[in-house]
Amino acid sequence: MKTQHKKIILIGAGNVATHLGLAFKKSKHTILQVYSPTKRSANALASILNAKPVTDLKKIDQDGDIYIIAIKDDVIIHVVKQLRLKDKIVVHTSGSTPMDILKNTSKNYGVFYPLQTFSKSKKIEFKNIPICLEASNADTYKALDSIANGISDTVRKVNSKQRKAIHVAAVFACNFSNHLYAIAEQILKENKLSLDILKPLIQETADKIKNNSPLKMQTGPAKRGDKKIMDAHLKMLAEKKEYQQLYKLLSQSIIISDKRNK
Amino acid sequence: MKTQHKKIILIGAGNVATHLGLAFKKSKHTILQVYSPTKRSANALASILNAKPVTDLKKIDQDGDIYIIAIKDDVIIHVVKQLRLKDKIVVHTSGSTPMDILKNTSKNYGVFYPLQTFSKSKKIEFKNIPICLEASNADTYKALDSIANGISDTVRKVNSKQRKAIHVAAVFACNFSNHLYAIAEQILKENKLSLDILKPLIQETADKIKNNSPLKMQTGPAKRGDKKIMDAHLKMLAEKKEYQQLYKLLSQSIIISDKRNK
Repeated sequence: MKTQHKKIILIGAGNVATHLGLAFKKSKHTILQVYSPTKRSANALASILNAKPVTDLKKIDQDGDIYIIAIKDDVIIHVVKQLRLKDKIVVHTSGSTPMDILKNTSKNYGVFYPLQTFSKSKKIEFKNIPICLEASNADTYKALDSIANGISDTVRKVNSKQRKAIHVAAVFACNFSNHLYAIAEQILKENKLSLDILKPLIQETADKIKNNSPLKMQTGPAKRGDKKIMDAHLKMLAEKKEYQQLYKLLSQSIIISDKRNK
Repeated sequence: MKTQHKKIILIGAGNVATHLGLAFKKSKHTILQVYSPTKRSANALASILNAKPVTDLKKIDQDGDIYIIAIKDDVIIHVVKQLRLKDKIVVHTSGSTPMDILKNTSKNYGVFYPLQTFSKSKKIEFKNIPICLEASNADTYKALDSIANGISDTVRKVNSKQRKAIHVAAVFACNFSNHLYAIAEQILKENKLSLDILKPLIQETADKIKNNSPLKMQTGPAKRGDKKIMDAHLKMLAEKKEYQQLYKLLSQSIIISDKRNK
């Protein structure tokens, strides 16, 4: 897809800003500036992206095409108060922040939300990361859609309500799943075993839903209604009330969901 | 690794029996018989494995080397009562059944537990599936270790208590994770979205723990202590008391585990 060359200002120098900056640079956009209140962070990312570092919001270049606010949710509001960009395109990258938080910064605003957990150390193939877009008007959407398609194979128009639903769904499917892996690791450790023994099974569980609904892939004692095994497991967890309660609630939820879908 | 050619009797014709039978055949063992009380099941698997089908336990060939009981947990006891095999090696493949259930069938008995959820339709690379072994004596262990190494790259000696811990850990890491995927799918569906949008993130979550402890990979609102987002999510889930309760309990558990490991 042909993408028009854009001048981008990155507001933020954390994981999301870093990965986005690299992806935009790769797709031939220019990163004019990197803003961070911390000089070292601004310098570090700016030097990778051949951009100018800034630590003062007043020195943000007014000559950019797209301003990307990639900072922690709770500080967006403070930055927004200091940004006035007339008709420039301004977006934030947050899953949980309403688009309208930007309405006083410019008449052309939106959300550019990449659906991924970024960590600085792990390299990421950006092409595979879905990007959810929302915009205050059609022209802004078009501009965002164009740069998003340049870096990702999956770009979706998603309104603020849907974006919130995606975020809460991601908490269940990813944050909470990871915590269940951590519980498994803890249980194994207490029995002098390593999580390694479960890794192929964890991988297979995630692989199976690539082409199947997880509802149909459900297995295990709760799905089979195997009360004997569930009771034995609860007994084993007697000294871990927290795990026991989770085991009960998750098993009940599987049984409920099974009945609902019969 | 050099494996001695063995004569194997499969008791059971379901998913586990099928996958084990195919793997043993591939590693040049002979499957003498396949037992199932259902004639059609016995015939179907026996014909794939060039074995003889039997539907009567009394007709089980006494000339085998290893007898593998791969049937549902709650029927193992009934089959075991009818099996008397002197000094032949007898194993079951269950994660939750004690080894001693076999002690009257032979003096050489054990457990041969492949750690995987098998489904008939999905082809599986057996080499990657860990096998947990337990045996009543050293010679039996050696024989089981030899055939297990012929079909899998990961063979572990695991006692009955550890095996139970592995099973409950697998319920957390796999059965319950899959249910969380199903909850995510349901939340997305109610907002006219498909689970597809979360699949790269789910995959990345499972990938990240290949080389890192899940404890260190934890992300999300609970990990950050972001009460504002958690409250907003709980409010969104107000009409789904079951999901709301799970969200609360899992978030609390992440917070507890975070404190415990600081």
